[in-house]
Formats: sequence, structure tokens, C-alpha cells
Amino acid sequence: MKKNRKEIQVEWGDCDPAGIAYYPRFFEMFDSCTNALFESVGLKKREVLKTYGLAGIPMVETSARFFVPSSFGDRVTVDSAIVEWGNSSFRVEHKLFRGEVLAAEGFEKRVWTALAKDGSNKLQSQKIPQEVKDRFQ
Amino acid sequence: MKKNRKEIQVEWGDCDPAGIAYYPRFFEMFDSCTNALFESVGLKKREVLKTYGLAGIPMVETSARFFVPSSFGDRVTVDSAIVEWGNSSFRVEHKLFRGEVLAAEGFEKRVWTALAKDGSNKLQSQKIPQEVKDRFQ
Amino acid sequence: MKKNRKEIQVEWGDCDPAGIAYYPRFFEMFDSCTNALFESVGLKKREVLKTYGLAGIPMVETSARFFVPSSFGDRVTVDSAIVEWGNSSFRVEHKLFRGEVLAAEGFEKRVWTALAKDGSNKLQSQKIPQEVKDRFQ
Amino acid sequence: MKKNRKEIQVEWGDCDPAGIAYYPRFFEMFDSCTNALFESVGLKKREVLKTYGLAGIPMVETSARFFVPSSFGDRVTVDSAIVEWGNSSFRVEHKLFRGEVLAAEGFEKRVWTALAKDGSNKLQSQKIPQEVKDRFQ
Repeated sequence: MKKNRKEIQVEWGDCDPAGIAYYPRFFEMFDSCTNALFESVGLKKREVLKTYGLAGIPMVETSARFFVPSSFGDRVTVDSAIVEWGNSSFRVEHKLFRGEVLAAEGFEKRVWTALAKDGSNKLQSQKIPQEVKDRFQ
Repeated sequence: MKKNRKEIQVEWGDCDPAGIAYYPRFFEMFDSCTNALFESVGLKKREVLKTYGLAGIPMVETSARFFVPSSFGDRVTVDSAIVEWGNSSFRVEHKLFRGEVLAAEGFEKRVWTALAKDGSNKLQSQKIPQEVKDRFQ
Repeated sequence: MKKNRKEIQVEWGDCDPAGIAYYPRFFEMFDSCTNALFESVGLKKREVLKTYGLAGIPMVETSARFFVPSSFGDRVTVDSAIVEWGNSSFRVEHKLFRGEVLAAEGFEKRVWTALAKDGSNKLQSQKIPQEVKDRFQ
Repeated sequence: MKKNRKEIQVEWGDCDPAGIAYYPRFFEMFDSCTNALFESVGLKKREVLKTYGLAGIPMVETSARFFVPSSFGDRVTVDSAIVEWGNSSFRVEHKLFRGEVLAAEGFEKRVWTALAKDGSNKLQSQKIPQEVKDRFQ
């Protein structure tokens, strides 16, 4: 399975009054890492949405563990990979490092989601095309 | 165990290009709900930090499941309760409703955390005072 | 001109390592205040967009001055009013108070904006309907 | 005066239901650009705060104009420079480009700010050291 590594600088505005990165910011980072993972195999989010008529690839379940805090000025690296494919969903794993130290990890379950074609504006899961899955081999 | 209910309006700025609340915003909401839960038993965060010499009550593990999307203009209610106390950590559960429908739920494990007294600026877990736990009975 | 007053609690997650509200958060607050101002005259954003075929009411110019910092746990009130109508744009003024003290103020120039009807997905300014302006009298 | 150029990728989570970057995110970008400008002359924010005993470099006045919207996947560049020094404050100008097009610009007035030494926890403006100003020549 293809992996992607992304470098992120923790910003002043990511940090809370304890001086450490406010944990919801890590979910924003992980989200951008999933997008970067897709882009690394030639699937830019904007084009994916257009090509497959998706509204988005929303989260249905996510979790994270935080081992070591990060603070503004820190540069962290995140290794991301898809670890499981379902019919219309997939799981992503992120490992965030400060230097050599595993500082946090995150898991995601996302769904390939289109707008219903009956004009109702509802979101509906869709079968993930095999050609998309193949890109990550 | 005491519960708290908080009403939150989903804002335009909470939503993504799919028109639904961007999932990291739910972690911000849950964080404010944990603070509101403490405040509901007379423990305002600002005073808690000062009284007990804490740097914060950081997250060590959190997860969420999203069942039904929310969008700008929606008013949601979140029921929050501490479901388990450890020596220096505790678990919080949040249930987020759109009307009668359970739209999302979140779990948190947080640690009672002070600055080390050796001047090293490190964060250290602390025993949670019994008087704090008693407030939630 | 009609005014609206909105109460906002400054949250832990709104604050930076200096312990005060991170200034971009005030722009998020002001944005929610403009939406609340419209809602106060019966114009919910979701319905406004649908009724008038708007993509949004984007900002073209904004400024703010910060006189007194706010911190987590503070409840602030914001008075908002539309102070000038143009053909396709309008100006909003926000005054944010901590107690009786003017803590910050913000100005906005926004544009009534639809998607171009030629399918090009471009954003285009539109004439603001008189019935919308009349609501604020 | 020294300038700094920073590249920023607009993320999915930066964008609103209109599909364009939500304007408060530009203030977050500009804030990170000011920090990067300081870092480019050898003044990392973390070290600046420690060396000069600052609580932060808070904003007292800021404005922005938005000419062309940006969306997720766009890479923008921001040119930042300090355009005026006062005794305890300074002005920063940011120009944000999409390709060759000026898409937005921002102005900031910030204050060199320390905690009061009387233990009152109040914020106080300080004289900006000449050696700091000299770095930007």
C-alpha cells in the first residue's frame, strides 16, 4: 500500500493557553494528510469530486491518541496510508512524529459519498471505483 | 453522575464545501461541552486551573462517530457526562442530537495536568482531588 | 436601522498561548453575528441562499480594532447593524463589549453573490432585492 | 526592508459551503506569514518570546481586502513585509497571490507585549529593541 509523508509546521494559532497544539487541530492536519495521500497517487480532491460526482468523502468514525504534545514552531511529519478498503468506505491511518518520536496517531473511516440523484439533496454512499483503489497499490 | 446539556448553533464557518459541518468542528464543540459540564457543577475552567495549578486538562485519546450530518443554521444539543474516573484521568461521553435523532457521539480521555515544579516547563499528570470528583455525584 | 445583539462565550479553543482570544476568532464571531442579524429580521441564511439563488454573501473588505483582550470563560456581547446599503453590497458594523467596555469593533463590506447562470461556476455580484433591504428598516 | 515569501496550500477545511476559502482563514494565514517573516531574519517566535519576556505580539488593528476567491487545492503565495516601525508597535503588509494575480491583501498593526512585572497578569506594551528592528534592514 502506498504511503505519503507530509511535513506540517505547528503554528501559534494552532496552540491553546497551555501552549500546546489544541487537539482538534490535529484532526484538521490529518484531514489535509488524507487529501495529500490521494494527491500523491494522482487524485486531487477537486478533480476526484468532479470526476465521480461526489459531494465529499465525509468521516463516519475517527479516533486519535496523543502521546507527546507539540507546540508552535515545531515541525512534525505525518505518515498516512489507507489500511483497509470496503465497498463504499475505507480506513486511513496517520502517524505523527516529532523528530523520531511518535507524538500522535489517528484513524479514520470515510465514505465515498454522492448527492442523491432524485434532487432531494441527500447524501448517499457510493461504490468506490476499482480504478481508485488500484492507484494505491 | 451529573449530566449537562448544551445547545449549539452550527455556523456557516463550521461547514465545508459539501455544505455540512466539518468534522474537526465537532471536537471543538465537544471540548466546549466538557468545559460547560465542569462549569455546571461550579468548576469554571479558569478557576480550576488557578486553584489546582493546572496547565490544562489535555486530551490523550478521543474518538467520535458521525451518523447524520449537520449544516449551518441547525441547532444541536449535546448531552455530556463523565463516565469514568481514574487516578489522574477521566473519560467523558458526548451525545449530539439534531432534534430527537442521535447525530454524533464522542468519547474523551483527559488527564489532570500541571507544569512540573522543577522549572523544566514539562507537563506532568496529577492526582485528581476527591473534592473535584465529588462535585459530579 | 435594526440592530441585533448576540452573546458569545469565549472558549478555551478560541485562545492562544498568550491566554487571550486569537484574533482570527473575532472574525468568525463577527461572521456569525452578521448571520444572526439577518436571522433577527426573518432572513435565515440557508433560506436566503435558496430563495435568491446565492452562493454566499462573501467578504470583500473587512477590518477590526482590538482594544481590550478577552479570554476563555468571558461572555461578550456583540451589537451588529448594517450601516450602509449599496446596489449589490452592504456594510456591517460590529461592536464587541466585555461588560460595559468596548473591547473590539469590526467592519465588513459584503457582496450579494450568485453563481453565474452560464454554467461556468463563476461567482457574480447581484442586485440586492429591495424587500431584503426593507426588512432592516 | 526585508520581505518574506510563503507558500500556502488552501485546504478543504479552509473552505465554506460556497466552496471558497472562509475569510477568517486568511487572517490565520497572514498570522503565520508574520511569524515566518520574523523567522526568516533569525527570530523564531518561541525564542523571541523567551528572550524578550513577551506574552505575545497581539494585533491591535487589522484589515484585509479580497479580490479573487481561492478554493481547496489552490496554492497561493504570500509576500510579507514590515512597512512601518513605531516605538512599541509595527505595521505588516501581506500580499496574497494566486499565480500572478493579487487575490487578497492584509494589513496589521501589532504591539510588542509583555506581562506586567507587578504580578497582576496584565498585558503591557514594551519598547521594541533596536536590535530587532535592525534585523529587517
